[in-house]
Amino acid sequence: MMNIDVHVREVGLRDGLQMTSTFMPTADKLAWIAAEFAAGVREIEVTSFVPPRLIPQFGDAEEVVRGAMALPGLNVVALIPNLKGAERGFALGVPKLDYVVSVSRTHNLRNVRREREASMEDFARIVAARDAAGLKGRVTLASGLSTALGCSYEGRIAVDEVRRCAAELAAMGADEIMIADTLGYATPTQVREVFKAVLAETGSIPVAAHFHDTRGTGLANVAAALDCGIRHFDASLGGLGGCPHAPGASGNIVMEDLVFLLEGMGLKTGVDLTRLLAVREIPARALGAGALSGALARAGLPTGFVPA
Amino acid sequence: MMNIDVHVREVGLRDGLQMTSTFMPTADKLAWIAAEFAAGVREIEVTSFVPPRLIPQFGDAEEVVRGAMALPGLNVVALIPNLKGAERGFALGVPKLDYVVSVSRTHNLRNVRREREASMEDFARIVAARDAAGLKGRVTLASGLSTALGCSYEGRIAVDEVRRCAAELAAMGADEIMIADTLGYATPTQVREVFKAVLAETGSIPVAAHFHDTRGTGLANVAAALDCGIRHFDASLGGLGGCPHAPGASGNIVMEDLVFLLEGMGLKTGVDLTRLLAVREIPARALGAGALSGALARAGLPTGFVPA
Repeated sequence: MMNIDVHVREVGLRDGLQMTSTFMPTADKLAWIAAEFAAGVREIEVTSFVPPRLIPQFGDAEEVVRGAMALPGLNVVALIPNLKGAERGFALGVPKLDYVVSVSRTHNLRNVRREREASMEDFARIVAARDAAGLKGRVTLASGLSTALGCSYEGRIAVDEVRRCAAELAAMGADEIMIADTLGYATPTQVREVFKAVLAETGSIPVAAHFHDTRGTGLANVAAALDCGIRHFDASLGGLGGCPHAPGASGNIVMEDLVFLLEGMGLKTGVDLTRLLAVREIPARALGAGALSGALARAGLPTGFVPA
Repeated sequence: MMNIDVHVREVGLRDGLQMTSTFMPTADKLAWIAAEFAAGVREIEVTSFVPPRLIPQFGDAEEVVRGAMALPGLNVVALIPNLKGAERGFALGVPKLDYVVSVSRTHNLRNVRREREASMEDFARIVAARDAAGLKGRVTLASGLSTALGCSYEGRIAVDEVRRCAAELAAMGADEIMIADTLGYATPTQVREVFKAVLAETGSIPVAAHFHDTRGTGLANVAAALDCGIRHFDASLGGLGGCPHAPGASGNIVMEDLVFLLEGMGLKTGVDLTRLLAVREIPARALGAGALSGALARAGLPTGFVPA
């Protein structure tokens, strides 16, 4: 096994596909997962256990999870919206489940129709259900804090609100905490403020960064988070995603550009960039080439580029 | 006069237009300059004194310079390829002239058909000619070091080569030095290495950064340069530019995204983002909307955004 300095996690199959109206055939999803795993990405959020009537894209969640779990060494993750979703995950033996709460009270209310406190309490119930099922140590329960760096309803979010939410999740037993700039509002200054505040509360729990590149600051924010000691980053192949509040805007930071940045900074990701770039063909075939963005894919690797 | 923390300089009329095959009418160029100046950009590289038979886009250089110099308070800059170009600038009374040398010997040879040393000596002759004409203190002579962070022929460029070139330019009397990542090869790690090395040689001479966003790292590199103390940045409206070696690749960092990054970091640029975004209409009309990129233009300002 090679040493990894920074862990990158693919979220395009969940955060990206939930935005696309085209249903991506299950076989294509599994081909994408297999190819990106073969390129060296070790963790992939493969689906969401939301009710398929809400997002038909995830109607094949069970099949995708089973197919992904057949790849030895891949850390398979699924998003869970609530306890019911978690129970689907427990039943399938998914090794890692991601739950999400919005730091913005208004966003949480509009997004999942309940108060932030109710969402927090649900996470505690999910942890308790896992432990009661004897799955502690076998199922990692991560929780994301979305709109942590800005909200389309509330604007700026107080750093202290994020800190308090992170502390609550840690106290409830979160195995990992993701801080998400859901709308791509952040600049490096805010990233430093927020991550420093969060890290002061989370002890040895891994803290991951989930940035969107909506306003071009995504990779600058990655560099700022690296300065704070963050070593786990979400990204999506071809930047699949977008933002429901800004049609045409870019989505998650682009996985290929993230890996280029990190390897170019001398940080090993375990990912082979040439193989990673070739994976784009799979979602491009299913969703159309126009669905994918990415600077490295257009420009190619620099002459004489040496990975970390 | 408002305080400015970071100086942004528009280079799209030179670095951007030299890549476009469509001749932009002189009136449109002047409208662009006037509108961007009105939005708060205080320095604009408006043209290049290369022979028009080489780049027909700059056939109206004299007219553009005269029109731009009619705007009181605008710092007008023109690129000069050699002593002859400098003399055109002196004759017109252009307050600032930019000269460029490639750190990569191969790139310099292929680009301007002479050795790097010969290009360096030419800069010394330009300084001497300015001083002999009694223009010292009235004409600022800046010199850029292109391919300082990587070259499509040579690959990585040794930091020591950049340092040595910067020291030579400083010794020759350069009033400002620009360090350019001409091909968009850099990551923040290299930016820090190179700028620290350069700053150790340049004393009180302003050092500017000229980044291309070819591989998505442009704004991350800006943040890294800010950490080193750099307070002068080149950019182009809508990222106009591109890279001759990578068709379809993006060009200079996008001015609107740069200003958003800086203002979002609490750094005053003196630029009104809403007015700046409106300026895009002028080059879009002349060159086609497809010529312009930019994340902020697609996504819009965040809810509750407060400039520095």
